[in-house]
Amino acid sequence: MRLATLCDGTRDGRLIVVSPDGAAYAPAPVATLQDALEDWAACSAQLETVGEFPEPLDPVQLAAPLPRAWQWLDGSAFQSHGDLMDAVLGITKIQTHLPLMYQGASDKFYGPYDDVPFGDEALGIDFEGEFGVIVDAVPMGTSAADAMAYIRLIVQINDWSLRTLAGPEMKTGFGWVQAKPHCAMAPFAVTPDELGDQWRDGRVCLDLNVDWNGKRFGAANGGAMGFGFHELVAHAARTRDLVAGTVIGSGTVSNANFREIGSSCIAERRGIEVLDQGEPKTAFMTFGETVRMEAVDAAGRAPFGALEQRVVSVRSSL
Amino acid sequence: MRLATLCDGTRDGRLIVVSPDGAAYAPAPVATLQDALEDWAACSAQLETVGEFPEPLDPVQLAAPLPRAWQWLDGSAFQSHGDLMDAVLGITKIQTHLPLMYQGASDKFYGPYDDVPFGDEALGIDFEGEFGVIVDAVPMGTSAADAMAYIRLIVQINDWSLRTLAGPEMKTGFGWVQAKPHCAMAPFAVTPDELGDQWRDGRVCLDLNVDWNGKRFGAANGGAMGFGFHELVAHAARTRDLVAGTVIGSGTVSNANFREIGSSCIAERRGIEVLDQGEPKTAFMTFGETVRMEAVDAAGRAPFGALEQRVVSVRSSL
Repeated sequence: MRLATLCDGTRDGRLIVVSPDGAAYAPAPVATLQDALEDWAACSAQLETVGEFPEPLDPVQLAAPLPRAWQWLDGSAFQSHGDLMDAVLGITKIQTHLPLMYQGASDKFYGPYDDVPFGDEALGIDFEGEFGVIVDAVPMGTSAADAMAYIRLIVQINDWSLRTLAGPEMKTGFGWVQAKPHCAMAPFAVTPDELGDQWRDGRVCLDLNVDWNGKRFGAANGGAMGFGFHELVAHAARTRDLVAGTVIGSGTVSNANFREIGSSCIAERRGIEVLDQGEPKTAFMTFGETVRMEAVDAAGRAPFGALEQRVVSVRSSL
Repeated sequence: MRLATLCDGTRDGRLIVVSPDGAAYAPAPVATLQDALEDWAACSAQLETVGEFPEPLDPVQLAAPLPRAWQWLDGSAFQSHGDLMDAVLGITKIQTHLPLMYQGASDKFYGPYDDVPFGDEALGIDFEGEFGVIVDAVPMGTSAADAMAYIRLIVQINDWSLRTLAGPEMKTGFGWVQAKPHCAMAPFAVTPDELGDQWRDGRVCLDLNVDWNGKRFGAANGGAMGFGFHELVAHAARTRDLVAGTVIGSGTVSNANFREIGSSCIAERRGIEVLDQGEPKTAFMTFGETVRMEAVDAAGRAPFGALEQRVVSVRSSL
């Protein structure tokens, strides 16, 4: 099942069920995705009954499938990315067998085709392509093994990041606030069964194609996560109940052979340049530039649809 | 104006207006505090018209005045506390002229008399007495001077903390997730005018009386913040729009003469013990223990009412 949310002028939008080919939709028998998540057993059964899709779907009409959430906890589960970022930021992290995770802004997720406003190009504007899961209510202390059963939906996320601010905030120990403005989501939230064999051990085993200004920048596979999403969920729930609709992120998708397949964020490429050439060569994004992200399977099918966003000045967007 | 929220079985509760003496209330002409915050000009005018308080108020019926929020950003604006915590945690932070801030769980704030469940006493269960403000929608890039005008309500918060987890999470650079479970709020959210002269330069200039198991533990004054709340709001809004109902915290209230007046959290007392005696002497909380927090003015009046909570085992609370 693939779900999406139409912009309708409200903050939560209007839930729709999307056809198998992604080209059409039906209004859902539940008003919003948050409503569905809060009574998933009953609502998902209703949603599954939708079999006719009378309306043509224009992705530009779409909000994020979950346009706001009560909680967004983003991990950093790809070891090859973490190691590089530490190198480029000059961070020496403690060794830990636990996932890395911070809490980010969840009061708004941009839609897949929204322009994204920033105050200043000097902030080091960067995209981060990643995957996420949306969970049901998870009780405090749930084990990783049990956490898998609470994963309701899988999404594809662009975690906008401001690199000039990221290093200094990280060094305070308090984590990121200014360096992590609102994220965006690709059009469709999908149930795990939609991914078939590509959902394995709590990992989205798809290539995430990332294009910067129309040119391929990376195609890393989500299967390389050092922790599965069930382990990230259990980490998040260790000392708190998770509310239904909590979104848990993977962190930037990255593979150890990034020199061949590229990266899902500019900072990683800059890290490689620091390692290989002594200094970063690639500049961050400027106003007017675009990024496109689309996870595809071996047959070229894109379960989450494509996200395509343009960076704009906050002044021009007012 | 003092506002509170009655438990009514819903997540947002039922907004009430509280009498000047705190002993009675009237149902508000707006259903929830979040509703009021999203249309403050119109709603606050309606709320101000309430002049009769027919119902006796039992504080035990109360939820947090804002039982959940779309965003909770907690500062650490008391320098005497920050310096001590760095010492006890072995943290060497970079020098910065910016406020410290992290994003915490906002999907639930405990009510002022709720028992608070934790999984294990070994996690280092600690309270943190602090103040907070609830803001209207704040545009990205708002200056500190302009931010003052967006502060709608002031609250008193108990920021529950798990110290065993705090140091290691801080050293990852990602900030706190497991170390910061849900917070609690004292009964009443008040408009700034309610504090009269005690609201000065974006600071709540009241003593925060903290009693642990019925014994006075601290009475630090909120006026000692190194940054005013307007500066914390501007910091939070530097790269993101803040949604109406965002809660911004001061961090643990602390004064430089903490050896005389005590502390608003156990970790600070332990820090003093490390400095003065070479090791911490005071243990963290155990199940069954209580903490009470009440900010009072010179006349002994408590604008926010009193918060009193008991620590329980998550197993006994199921």
